[in-house]
Amino acid sequence: MSGYQAPLRDAQFVLRELAGIGQVAKLPGFEEATADVVDAILEEAGKFAGGVLAPLNASGDQTGAVWKDGAVTMPPGFKEAYGQFVENGWNGIGCDPEYGGQGMPKLVVAAVQEMWKASNMAFSLCPLLTTGAIEAITLTGSPAQKEKFLPKMIQGTWTGTMNLTEPQAGSDLALVRSRAVPQGDGTYKIFGQKIFITYGEHDMTENVIHLVLARTPDAPEGVKGISLFVVPKFMVNDDGSLGARNDAHCVSIEHKLGIHASPTCVMAFGDHGGATGYLVGKENEGLKYMFVMMNAARFAVGLEGVAIAERAYQQALAYARERIQGRDLADGSGPVPIIRHPDIRRMLMLMKSQTEAMRALAYVVAAAHDAAVRHPDAEERKRNQAFVDLMIPVVKGWSTETGIEIATLGIQIHGGMGFIEETGAAQHLRDARITTIYEGTTGIQAIDLIGRKIAREGGATIKAVLGVMRETNAHLSRQSGDDFAAISTAFAHGLQAVSEAAEHVATQFGKDIKGVHVGAVPFLKLFGIVAGGWQMARAALAAQKKLAAGEGDAGFYKAKITTARFYADHVLSQAPGLSYAVIKGGPGALELAEDQF
Amino acid sequence: MSGYQAPLRDAQFVLRELAGIGQVAKLPGFEEATADVVDAILEEAGKFAGGVLAPLNASGDQTGAVWKDGAVTMPPGFKEAYGQFVENGWNGIGCDPEYGGQGMPKLVVAAVQEMWKASNMAFSLCPLLTTGAIEAITLTGSPAQKEKFLPKMIQGTWTGTMNLTEPQAGSDLALVRSRAVPQGDGTYKIFGQKIFITYGEHDMTENVIHLVLARTPDAPEGVKGISLFVVPKFMVNDDGSLGARNDAHCVSIEHKLGIHASPTCVMAFGDHGGATGYLVGKENEGLKYMFVMMNAARFAVGLEGVAIAERAYQQALAYARERIQGRDLADGSGPVPIIRHPDIRRMLMLMKSQTEAMRALAYVVAAAHDAAVRHPDAEERKRNQAFVDLMIPVVKGWSTETGIEIATLGIQIHGGMGFIEETGAAQHLRDARITTIYEGTTGIQAIDLIGRKIAREGGATIKAVLGVMRETNAHLSRQSGDDFAAISTAFAHGLQAVSEAAEHVATQFGKDIKGVHVGAVPFLKLFGIVAGGWQMARAALAAQKKLAAGEGDAGFYKAKITTARFYADHVLSQAPGLSYAVIKGGPGALELAEDQF
Repeated sequence: MSGYQAPLRDAQFVLRELAGIGQVAKLPGFEEATADVVDAILEEAGKFAGGVLAPLNASGDQTGAVWKDGAVTMPPGFKEAYGQFVENGWNGIGCDPEYGGQGMPKLVVAAVQEMWKASNMAFSLCPLLTTGAIEAITLTGSPAQKEKFLPKMIQGTWTGTMNLTEPQAGSDLALVRSRAVPQGDGTYKIFGQKIFITYGEHDMTENVIHLVLARTPDAPEGVKGISLFVVPKFMVNDDGSLGARNDAHCVSIEHKLGIHASPTCVMAFGDHGGATGYLVGKENEGLKYMFVMMNAARFAVGLEGVAIAERAYQQALAYARERIQGRDLADGSGPVPIIRHPDIRRMLMLMKSQTEAMRALAYVVAAAHDAAVRHPDAEERKRNQAFVDLMIPVVKGWSTETGIEIATLGIQIHGGMGFIEETGAAQHLRDARITTIYEGTTGIQAIDLIGRKIAREGGATIKAVLGVMRETNAHLSRQSGDDFAAISTAFAHGLQAVSEAAEHVATQFGKDIKGVHVGAVPFLKLFGIVAGGWQMARAALAAQKKLAAGEGDAGFYKAKITTARFYADHVLSQAPGLSYAVIKGGPGALELAEDQF
Repeated sequence: MSGYQAPLRDAQFVLRELAGIGQVAKLPGFEEATADVVDAILEEAGKFAGGVLAPLNASGDQTGAVWKDGAVTMPPGFKEAYGQFVENGWNGIGCDPEYGGQGMPKLVVAAVQEMWKASNMAFSLCPLLTTGAIEAITLTGSPAQKEKFLPKMIQGTWTGTMNLTEPQAGSDLALVRSRAVPQGDGTYKIFGQKIFITYGEHDMTENVIHLVLARTPDAPEGVKGISLFVVPKFMVNDDGSLGARNDAHCVSIEHKLGIHASPTCVMAFGDHGGATGYLVGKENEGLKYMFVMMNAARFAVGLEGVAIAERAYQQALAYARERIQGRDLADGSGPVPIIRHPDIRRMLMLMKSQTEAMRALAYVVAAAHDAAVRHPDAEERKRNQAFVDLMIPVVKGWSTETGIEIATLGIQIHGGMGFIEETGAAQHLRDARITTIYEGTTGIQAIDLIGRKIAREGGATIKAVLGVMRETNAHLSRQSGDDFAAISTAFAHGLQAVSEAAEHVATQFGKDIKGVHVGAVPFLKLFGIVAGGWQMARAALAAQKKLAAGEGDAGFYKAKITTARFYADHVLSQAPGLSYAVIKGGPGALELAEDQF
């Protein structure tokens, strides 16, 4: 079982050179987030992740959360780790200072969250869901609701959940059936069953605050009749003390492929007379609120892809260095550590380069989010928001799909040992496998990307982003040496591939809606690969500048350039094939009658 | 949990139209394998697979094989199913009639084996290993050894194992340390520990015949000093009755990601004085024997990729038809079954088309094997053997890598339910994940492909095969209609991609051994994709002929053409990108110093 060392060096490089932490720290309200302060935060987070959370990852997987008589017992060590997590103030680092948060930029929060996710993804889901619930209440709650719930949730004393899914309503929330009956006193009684509720019940805190989608009696059908309610596990008295147990119970937890330590609950609301809930925001606007929060949640799941990839890479690298097997191909010496074998190197480089590309893209999007929210100039806010909206489905869809591929490469590098559970490599694949499904499957992300983010505006934002990417390529082509030539060539092919595919999507969307949608996921992968290549190219250019100036660790910067080149030759090179599938692949996918399958 | 229906229609199509069962039945000794007889065999096998083996697949996974005090208890139902399997004569259908086998062609055996693997992969590994042991003894055993072991092993009354791996010797068998000490009476005492021994111990039969690699006292170091021994669990008396328990014990079984019902044993030989073993064949030639058998084993594991893909496809298809979620994109009707959504169709088509391509290629290789062994003309035997040798690493490597991708698509189609173990979709991924590892990892297959199968002969065989593929494409280009135009275009690109990559491999192998090896796995995938495309193209042509003649089920034949087109647009289109990685990808992968990772 390998440990986890937070990738501080790479995180710092991305923060400084690619995501512009310096610029972010100039935004109003983020003045404290100077590079030095951020370094200190990352270092501390890295210690907590590596020292406290990582050691519980495998044992948490083996024991799993255990349900009995409505109560969920977390695996040994989780409650204590969570207590420390709260005590150290990690829960609220990105939250509103008015309610006790530290108000750090999303860029910093992203780097820190990556560490929780990498060290112990199952653990990290608890604060992730709490954050979602905090955002929902912050965004739409009444002042009294905020006062009642936010301080404890931001502190982490209480955790939060999001209750959306029902057995018949997964991707399609129009089918939600849970009911909310007004009681005439401003409260509602909630009735219904929710499934797949992450941390719906656990023993790490005294209270759990559920956010629940349900329909009021005269609500319109479909998505326009869904309201959002807050339903505490224990009622909260006006003085903040806990009152009666609410009628919201965990009736079972799922037996899952991975994230065993994260209890995935079936929640029964109102089986014993009705669960008391309070309307959050306006009636029938619940789904709208969810969509606003969804950007954050989807981004966070995208980070899970980055994080698991990093963890799997570290473990595979350690094994590749220590496992002795076979002879050196060139000089016949050996037996040698398997990292000496070209195919093992290829796999390690695939893991390393794609992880770095995904991290860079995610952090750059986080920085854009900070600018979108805080920039003094309205045009800048708008431009950044458009970029964030465009990239969120890419960060989510591409990073999670790639995270799974990287976790499976991690197993492959271990050979037979990778298939043995005690090795720990298999857990990463099992854990990663959920990330392309929850918070909207890759298919849902891709539909969002080609429809709401591209076709709806005729491709305006993506064209602007491609323009910026072309500027990067112009810089690349002015560099000398084989590495930059290789990067520039593949990146140019990639840009052309995205360009043509995006044009196809924008122009054909209205004419051939199903055909274009066949290409949705290939387009998402294509755009992810090229956007990642863009960041790798920027990284190579930044590294070259440092090398030219004789600054810093030359080995690190040279590796950045080599890694970008590998990515260009092995990953960016897939772009034209994906573009081909986007443009040509509609008819063949749609031709069969359903009974011909 | 879905059932399994043997894909008789597609198997029959491939056997008749692509693999030429008619030609195979003309080979000496295979006269009984007429199309009608084969149909009857497949139908019976399909019944046994779907009715007896498939229902034990999930329960076997949940219970797993259980080790206690050296004994392994199989999951409920396995012993009985195995008894029926033996009683029905399935174990020996491909074996030598002289010892009780049925001597069916490999083509037929492949189609039948696919069904065992698809219905219950963990179960199927027991006869698979027995078959390997039977082949070893058939190939190299003395007449007395054959007489003693083969009849019961072919019948299935005793099972067999292959004991190669040791903790320090996995892919690199040169590092094997197990010892064989001659006793002066023609027997040896075997000492050593073997790991990853499939069905090394179980309770389904009264005896287990182990084949063990070990070194005699004066054996040379490395691969040239390894001998093969037969070591029965219970000694076999001259009258065929069982004697004393031998000193070969299962000291534990592994806790694995998948194939839980297949006991993966740690075997201790000689911990209590020495396990009695008999030399098989000549001293120090053990590894050579293993390599001869390896083609069969690798082919069989390749079939596992096909089989799991088929099973995962069937399950995903059933779910896609029954799950109601979301509205029809074109007309807004619904909610509709999710098979109506373009991205679900894309995933189903990826599963279906690649499964059919892999099956076709595997069966065609099996038919070539039959011709290589039985054809009256020596040139034909040689030509077919060269084709088989070239394609075995492709069938193994490409089908298993793709099988994993298809199993993961199966989960994705299930959405959140795919992550829940009870659904059964996750088991296919867990089971499939071993297939790219055992019997030589994909990396090992790829090294074999580019080195022994291509570079060593200057690419002669692959060039000949590419010539045959070009003839197919000439036929394609003479067909009319969009489907054939699409297939022909993508296939032509694919052929060019393989051609250039193969040329690079053949010419650069001696000059840049490590750089070429970086491209080994991308080349294997490239060749697999194009060889699969070749079979899909042949299938489309055969279907077109049937349609033109007005013969058979038009819906089935039209689906074949559409499926080939989908494969061309979505799968073959990846070929140029892979060729790019093969040709350009060496330097970037090799440049980093080990401490720069």
